[in-house]
Amino acid sequence: MTQEPQPVEPLTPVQVVRHLLDASSIVIVGASDDPRKASGRTLHYLSKYKYAGAVYPVNPRRETVQGIPAYRSVADVPGRPDLAVIVVPAADVADAVRDVGARGIPVAVVFASGFAETGDDGERAQQELAAVARKAGVRILGPNCVGVVGAGRNLTAAFMTGLDQDRFDLVDDGLAFVTQSGAMGAFILSMAQSSGLGLGRFVSTGNEADLTLPQIIEGLVDDDTTTAVLGYVEGIRDPEGFRRALSHAAERRIPVALMKVGRSARGALAAQSHTGSLVGSDAVYAGLFSQYGVHRADDIDQLLDLGRVFASPRRAGGPRLSIVTLSGGAGVLLTDAAEDAGLTVAPWTADWQQRIAAVLPPFASVTNPIDTTGAIAGDQNMLRDAAVLALENPDSDIVIVMIGNLDREEERVSELLIEAAATADKPLVVVWVGGSGRPVATLSRAGVPTFTEPLRAIRAVAALVDWSAAHGAGTGRVHSRLSPRHEEAESPAALDEVAAKALLSRFGVSTVREVAVTTPREAADAARFTGLPAVVKLLSRNVTHKSEHGFVRLGLDTEAEVSAATEQILAAARAIGIEDRRIVVQAMLSSETELILGMRHDPAFGPAIALGLGGVLTEIAADVAVRLPPLTANDVASMRAALRNSALLDGPRGRVAVDHDALTRTVLAFARFAEERGSEFDSVEINPLLVDADGSLVAVDALMIPSSPGGPTQERA
Amino acid sequence: MTQEPQPVEPLTPVQVVRHLLDASSIVIVGASDDPRKASGRTLHYLSKYKYAGAVYPVNPRRETVQGIPAYRSVADVPGRPDLAVIVVPAADVADAVRDVGARGIPVAVVFASGFAETGDDGERAQQELAAVARKAGVRILGPNCVGVVGAGRNLTAAFMTGLDQDRFDLVDDGLAFVTQSGAMGAFILSMAQSSGLGLGRFVSTGNEADLTLPQIIEGLVDDDTTTAVLGYVEGIRDPEGFRRALSHAAERRIPVALMKVGRSARGALAAQSHTGSLVGSDAVYAGLFSQYGVHRADDIDQLLDLGRVFASPRRAGGPRLSIVTLSGGAGVLLTDAAEDAGLTVAPWTADWQQRIAAVLPPFASVTNPIDTTGAIAGDQNMLRDAAVLALENPDSDIVIVMIGNLDREEERVSELLIEAAATADKPLVVVWVGGSGRPVATLSRAGVPTFTEPLRAIRAVAALVDWSAAHGAGTGRVHSRLSPRHEEAESPAALDEVAAKALLSRFGVSTVREVAVTTPREAADAARFTGLPAVVKLLSRNVTHKSEHGFVRLGLDTEAEVSAATEQILAAARAIGIEDRRIVVQAMLSSETELILGMRHDPAFGPAIALGLGGVLTEIAADVAVRLPPLTANDVASMRAALRNSALLDGPRGRVAVDHDALTRTVLAFARFAEERGSEFDSVEINPLLVDADGSLVAVDALMIPSSPGGPTQERA
Repeated sequence: MTQEPQPVEPLTPVQVVRHLLDASSIVIVGASDDPRKASGRTLHYLSKYKYAGAVYPVNPRRETVQGIPAYRSVADVPGRPDLAVIVVPAADVADAVRDVGARGIPVAVVFASGFAETGDDGERAQQELAAVARKAGVRILGPNCVGVVGAGRNLTAAFMTGLDQDRFDLVDDGLAFVTQSGAMGAFILSMAQSSGLGLGRFVSTGNEADLTLPQIIEGLVDDDTTTAVLGYVEGIRDPEGFRRALSHAAERRIPVALMKVGRSARGALAAQSHTGSLVGSDAVYAGLFSQYGVHRADDIDQLLDLGRVFASPRRAGGPRLSIVTLSGGAGVLLTDAAEDAGLTVAPWTADWQQRIAAVLPPFASVTNPIDTTGAIAGDQNMLRDAAVLALENPDSDIVIVMIGNLDREEERVSELLIEAAATADKPLVVVWVGGSGRPVATLSRAGVPTFTEPLRAIRAVAALVDWSAAHGAGTGRVHSRLSPRHEEAESPAALDEVAAKALLSRFGVSTVREVAVTTPREAADAARFTGLPAVVKLLSRNVTHKSEHGFVRLGLDTEAEVSAATEQILAAARAIGIEDRRIVVQAMLSSETELILGMRHDPAFGPAIALGLGGVLTEIAADVAVRLPPLTANDVASMRAALRNSALLDGPRGRVAVDHDALTRTVLAFARFAEERGSEFDSVEINPLLVDADGSLVAVDALMIPSSPGGPTQERA
Repeated sequence: MTQEPQPVEPLTPVQVVRHLLDASSIVIVGASDDPRKASGRTLHYLSKYKYAGAVYPVNPRRETVQGIPAYRSVADVPGRPDLAVIVVPAADVADAVRDVGARGIPVAVVFASGFAETGDDGERAQQELAAVARKAGVRILGPNCVGVVGAGRNLTAAFMTGLDQDRFDLVDDGLAFVTQSGAMGAFILSMAQSSGLGLGRFVSTGNEADLTLPQIIEGLVDDDTTTAVLGYVEGIRDPEGFRRALSHAAERRIPVALMKVGRSARGALAAQSHTGSLVGSDAVYAGLFSQYGVHRADDIDQLLDLGRVFASPRRAGGPRLSIVTLSGGAGVLLTDAAEDAGLTVAPWTADWQQRIAAVLPPFASVTNPIDTTGAIAGDQNMLRDAAVLALENPDSDIVIVMIGNLDREEERVSELLIEAAATADKPLVVVWVGGSGRPVATLSRAGVPTFTEPLRAIRAVAALVDWSAAHGAGTGRVHSRLSPRHEEAESPAALDEVAAKALLSRFGVSTVREVAVTTPREAADAARFTGLPAVVKLLSRNVTHKSEHGFVRLGLDTEAEVSAATEQILAAARAIGIEDRRIVVQAMLSSETELILGMRHDPAFGPAIALGLGGVLTEIAADVAVRLPPLTANDVASMRAALRNSALLDGPRGRVAVDHDALTRTVLAFARFAEERGSEFDSVEINPLLVDADGSLVAVDALMIPSSPGGPTQERA
């Protein structure tokens, strides 16, 4: 007998996450008696890891499943379970979701593959499934996901065989991990838990028919017990939600570290403008990550390294590192790497040198890096004493102890280091190279971030220091939904260079003084307005690269030269059959420094703003910083700083320095334009944006590529 | 009774290495009965690891040491041992070396610390020790080293406690490792052997009183059974030997991978010229490594990763990678990384897609990356079949199989992969993420390079592909000892800008047309020779930065302007009390592209040649390629290619392209100058080296900083 559907309140993201990771009772729909089968594994793992909750297998054909009483239908299950795990094949999932909804269970995990990942039919089936779930009032994770693990309850609503192991118990340090790839996620979970890293909140989002990675991040961040969030990202289907989640994490001061894979092949993007090619989707992610203070991991090791430092609640008070090692060589290695990473390794004061000398053997180096010498193999207490003093020293913001091997002494040394860490609130980071690997797990479980490779440790410590320094910054960002507003004026397709600059100038971008004309006489008159020397260029919708066709004449010193140049250009254009033949007369600005300011309308993220070095450097160096609007003055400063060659803007070797306020005004004006009008264009580019003699910025040329369903056409006049 | 000293033949480097790593009998001078003491450990480890040779402990106070018959003195030891290990304290080492020499033992390892690393007294003691060893005919390794390990014989003439372990037996893949840091070396040895990497030839060089790291590398390379050499380098005391060893390795096609630490702090070098600051000693190492095809490892993991691919004799026939995984996500990750690293991952032909489809389940992806799907958890044979087909496919140069976890199936899967590898000669590389770690050791021991992190695997595979591609190249380089020849002419201190360029032009560098004058009248005359427009500059030993003081006037169009500018500059110089006041009149060249060509005389390596982008890019981008002379045309081509912004030289956007032959001629001419005259200068810099309208190169300004014991003085006129 089926119960009546019960009205279900919409869940907030944090409620969804709690249903997933902290359910106190779970229904498994379609549970098999065979613990090796995909449909049997969830129940098997819940038993194996001793899930702290109730499990109700549903299997109409059996009295018990793997020794546990089974129910004929979801409707028969007692109470109101928090979570359903649906392990039936694809064809039966929709019915299962209806049953789950009817029984009032608000969240379900769906493992079945055979949906969008298989093509159009699967895509349709997935959309139907999503509709069914909405109607049934069930939030679903998946399909085609490997499930969730909530180590706080030993909840393993998952079927990945990585759980077939006896090397570790699940530990929860509040470290969360969201993954779009089930297989990669399972590998990473296993690597983390094997090495004692308490990555205890695991969510695989699969095809994201309903719940998306950003929604899960948002929910995790809202859970007060989450210390940090790691993620393995292939592509974001929900960009607004992603930005909201990252902004939320920044506000709540939850570090987020993401590994982003699946870059689109660069060659595939036709380089319609510099901005178009530079702001590829990987650049958008990079800009976004830097905007929200997200740490980007280049590989799995680095992702877990970041997890190691962020899982601990200890933050660094500054960049001053004290190093304790048992060899001079290790000290050299760490000091070099630390200084390269922007940390400081300063000698200790005489007073503190004396204090540490008192606990170390005669030949020890007591200045920082501290070298205890190999004597600690015989007397491990001196390692603890040195670590304690390093933590006590008010000139240490963070302490690294690097040792290695010590197989025979590993337990004692681990204990002593845990003891030392407990004497202070500062981060104590251990690098234990070689040896059995057991101390890494022991120390990590005790909350002491421990690494197996010194340079990886330094990189992670530098990330911790950065994050700690930016702690208060970048928070409180108000997210404003972008609503492109269409105005009366120009149809985008009608914009030539002059019209484009006129539009930008309405938003507050300074543009070069220029006049569009059609005859030599008018050109000469215009030159009186623009001033001499002047530039004369062809203005035509039919010509893309003016300078390559001799349609640009620079440095015209008299009205007569302007008139003559105009005549020649018009004649040349007529001779080769160019129909739209006008002329623009401009003031000639000379500058050694050119910028480029562009926008690309990303189909997913909306407009992205790119600031880069212009001229020949654009093509060569691809030196560009990307941010998504809305922007603040701080964002502009950070874009400037993010340019590799930003020193060029500071006026080296007698060059004009770029005026800070002018840059801020110009970029913010352009960003406002992009927010309001960006959706009308695939890309917009001011190139060059010249640095004038007083450091102000002037848009000399602009290219706007309208968005067009039939493929964009270039409109460079 | 002491025997008479026997005449000892000088040993070649390979003989030294064989005495160290393959001794058939070892004397331990000062062996202690306590296996925990430093002086007892060598004997303990030789027993523990079952050394395949004879051991003779020398201890005048005991009948036996650790159960082995002891000898009262080295003279009493029977036969003629290959190697002595001297474990007595520093004060007794010299006597022990004399005894060893008298007994005719040609090589000794010295552990004692308390020599050069402790300061001046220790340095003196070390020099005395070296003299004693020379006189006694004994080559010594150390002092202050941790010893050697030759896994072929289970020879552990070492005392590092990293050998206190029961996790691994020593394995020898022919992979050698030379280290200057004993502690770091011990950690790395343990990491390697723990993970099944047969790093079986370990040499710690310590203070290098006699045998140096380069000599050991040379000997290892000459041993026909060495497959590759890894090194941990802090600083080279024997640069000529280092170059000889690297050149030798290149000739013998032995891959060398080095981790170089101990960079000098950048700030410490006063930036006397751009070249001076750019060619810091780290840049010299970087240039040298690239010159000899040495792979540089950034961290320990990477060093061992390179060891993993190079320890196997398999080389890649090209960059075409076939990928076999069990998840789409892993395929995306590897493909992205491979393409970023310059490898190609092309779809398989229809024929081969059919062949692999036949062995995989229906939903598998068969195009490359091959995705077997998770079904291999149930049927592991399909993984082997897929790997075999990937190896068989003529479009694969190299195959990567990426899997993970599989704790329950790990033995079976390891066997199947070893089986697959045996079906071909191509490299089969495995990435096994997560899991117990045991498969990594199992597969590595079977000669299948196996990694725990996919991106690290890709980086190592890319290095293997690079090395394989360069296989024939870069060999056969003839080393020519540099012998600076002093000529009659100018004393270096007398060189001003004009004299400097005159000197360079004698070596074949094209220089700007210019005349040095002292009056306005002479300047006007000179301009007839140089041509108009002209440049007029102050020529004075008292002024370093001419352009900052208004002492440079450009674009002078008439002789009258030249005359007037000369008068003004001379007057201005007189007004501020500059004594050496001359004028140089130059042809004005205009160019959009400037290079910088410099030389820095490194105290250790002699002259290093730097080619970089000039003008403002020098300061901003530090884009420079460094090589040590003698150079060939190929070296110049490789320097050009090594510039990050080398595209600037190819004539982008209507710029003039740099003429290839002109660049080669100019750099080789400058290199000849550097070889012959370089020792007279700390640094020499042509800046700018202008690209003329026809692509040829013209030296416009030159700065030569003479070497001077009292600190260099700048001589820019």
